Amino acid sequence: MRKLAIIALALAGLNANASSLFESNEDAIEYRKAAFQLIRYQIGDMGDMLKGKVPFDAKRFEQRANNAAQLSTIPWEAFIAGSDKGDTDALPAVWSDRETFDKKAQMFAQYAQELAVAARSGDKAVIGPAFQNWAKGCKDCHKSFKD
Amino acid sequence: MRKLAIIALALAGLNANASSLFESNEDAIEYRKAAFQLIRYQIGDMGDMLKGKVPFDAKRFEQRANNAAQLSTIPWEAFIAGSDKGDTDALPAVWSDRETFDKKAQMFAQYAQELAVAARSGDKAVIGPAFQNWAKGCKDCHKSFKD
Repeated sequence: MRKLAIIALALAGLNANASSLFESNEDAIEYRKAAFQLIRYQIGDMGDMLKGKVPFDAKRFEQRANNAAQLSTIPWEAFIAGSDKGDTDALPAVWSDRETFDKKAQMFAQYAQELAVAARSGDKAVIGPAFQNWAKGCKDCHKSFKD
Repeated sequence: MRKLAIIALALAGLNANASSLFESNEDAIEYRKAAFQLIRYQIGDMGDMLKGKVPFDAKRFEQRANNAAQLSTIPWEAFIAGSDKGDTDALPAVWSDRETFDKKAQMFAQYAQELAVAARSGDKAVIGPAFQNWAKGCKDCHKSFKD
């Protein structure tokens, strides 16, 4: 529950805090890209373990899922006003339909947290659906908000 | 205690797991740079709050400290063999004196965790020394291991 509270806290403060973190739109774009990149690696390794491309290691999976849960709260505050221009694949809808975007971001972070909880079981039958759910959250958001 | 257990778990699996995560040395370098970059932003915002450059916001500080605690466990597994060559500032000592490097990495992650605990107090008198301790951990490691 502590973790869920932390995530709720993290998501509550997303936009209001952005301005003091970034000195430029380029900074903000770089920041969110770094976060998504780290997320991709967690997904990749977890996906490989579940598909049997590499041996399933419950402890490593749990580590990846914990990373994922924290990293999934990080990129959102960097979608600051003005950072639709520049080296970014973010679609204008991020800013024109911010409510939907924020909701999807919040669901994504929540699914990642649920995956981290599932990962503690060490049971692939529990972990698999939680992983799929989270991965679906990526695609669902990209469909509307990423070029 | 749960969080400390997670960090111990994360650090225990650092090197053994690296090979299945990265397809190339460039991937590994990119990964650790992304993590350090995100860490720098957390440090920057927390430092600004403590120095009074921006108003101190206990909730935001706690969020940054939680980010820092998790992010501080992430870069280390990416110092894989061979990734001393390429677009990196890592010094050869990372690989030639791995024991010291790993120990400093572990201390850094531990200080970040202690900062996250201190941040829950919302009290600058408690948070300040914990922040300094963690920031010192950056410099202490850079001195020996970063160009």
